[in-house]
Amino acid sequence: MEASFKPKGGARLHPWYVTGLVEGEGTFMVSFNRRPKLRVGIETRPSFSVSLSERDLDLLRMLRRFFGCGGIRYSRSDRTYKYEVRSITDLVRKIIPHFEKYPLAGAKRRDFEKFAQIVRWVHANHHLNPDYLREIIELAYSMNPSGRRKYAKDDLLRLLGEMKG
Amino acid sequence: MEASFKPKGGARLHPWYVTGLVEGEGTFMVSFNRRPKLRVGIETRPSFSVSLSERDLDLLRMLRRFFGCGGIRYSRSDRTYKYEVRSITDLVRKIIPHFEKYPLAGAKRRDFEKFAQIVRWVHANHHLNPDYLREIIELAYSMNPSGRRKYAKDDLLRLLGEMKG
Repeated sequence: MEASFKPKGGARLHPWYVTGLVEGEGTFMVSFNRRPKLRVGIETRPSFSVSLSERDLDLLRMLRRFFGCGGIRYSRSDRTYKYEVRSITDLVRKIIPHFEKYPLAGAKRRDFEKFAQIVRWVHANHHLNPDYLREIIELAYSMNPSGRRKYAKDDLLRLLGEMKG
Repeated sequence: MEASFKPKGGARLHPWYVTGLVEGEGTFMVSFNRRPKLRVGIETRPSFSVSLSERDLDLLRMLRRFFGCGGIRYSRSDRTYKYEVRSITDLVRKIIPHFEKYPLAGAKRRDFEKFAQIVRWVHANHHLNPDYLREIIELAYSMNPSGRRKYAKDDLLRLLGEMKG
């Protein structure tokens, strides 16, 4: 059966191959935006992405087909193409179950576990509760940094404190 | 059976996971050195490596265990740790067969195919023949560049021409 998974041409990717690729090139990220209209003042935005150079655009398309969700976009900041999933439903139903069945073997695994916890809280709408949101922020900022952060953690927590009062 | 491959703790890595990881973080490289004592004047040095940050040192060790060859070293130039295989015998018997059985799906596959051709020529001692060596140099320089090259292709070919005469 293994042979049928050979990723040639338009063929399927093997699920373990996907996990290995993500170990190197994938990012589990939780970012935040100020949203005065929300009661807690802060929007929580989890995302899963894989960044590759233009020569691997086909591979990103195979990845999108593999997961059956998400999109591909060009990232000006680092001149790569990103396969990206932001939908909470897709993260809960498609992305997280994959990495639970075919777990990461390296240090990224700890990031994934924090990410999965946050996504499940968001899915249950706990991110609209200031106490949960505080925990979400702490957890998100304890993940391995990838790229610049828009806000310092303390600024977010201070903002949250103001909204709560 | 899949479950037994879960890369937890000291467990084995799944072969497709290894291919996926190498798609992102692996390098197939053929470098050259001037060696006046050789009849062709140039030494051919193929190497396979995977570079990861310090936090993934354990993963590099699992990789070494997986392939049953090679070593791990710190790379000052890019501050990473590298799992590296340079032995021609190990490349022919262990590394190349893996990527033929569990092939890369992305653009790195073309680099691997050129690399495998060169390694087999070196294994058959063809790199000591000026005509083969010319082809090896052309093939090596058509691979996707990774890092700086010590020599320009034309300098190597010129050197080869001088030695041949």
